[in-house]
Amino acid sequence: MFLARVYVTLKKSVLDPQGVTVKHALDSLGYRQVDDVRLGKYMEIKINSGDRQKAEGLLKEMCEKLLINPVIEEFRYDLEQK
Amino acid sequence: MFLARVYVTLKKSVLDPQGVTVKHALDSLGYRQVDDVRLGKYMEIKINSGDRQKAEGLLKEMCEKLLINPVIEEFRYDLEQK
Repeated sequence: MFLARVYVTLKKSVLDPQGVTVKHALDSLGYRQVDDVRLGKYMEIKINSGDRQKAEGLLKEMCEKLLINPVIEEFRYDLEQK
Repeated sequence: MFLARVYVTLKKSVLDPQGVTVKHALDSLGYRQVDDVRLGKYMEIKINSGDRQKAEGLLKEMCEKLLINPVIEEFRYDLEQK
């Protein structure tokens, strides 16, 4: 069994309006030390496999097919054996 | 300058319908090795401060005040000096 933690972020060149909104909200609460906010997604996926390479291949495939939008997003992950 | 990476997840006891939907979608694509999916949020926040303790205090305060919902969510973070 592997626990995959996947971090999905917008590509650097893509505008993040949600992050801008959060930054403005923090500004209006008085947190002026915040320079930038970018929002992304975080996923925890349990993969029932005894083989790290297979689990990793599967994870990459799932990300590219369904979980992320490769036009505007990029992802990184770590894989922990449980 | 610090870069804070914040990982927000639903508490273990809270049902995650979005995760269930993603799991079903993966099932229907044939990924039957996936046992569980939980979705969360990921944030990158740049904090303009030279002092780690101050930046950390600020970050915790912002999370508790605005960025997370402590009733159903929990968060962890790491802080990297830039």
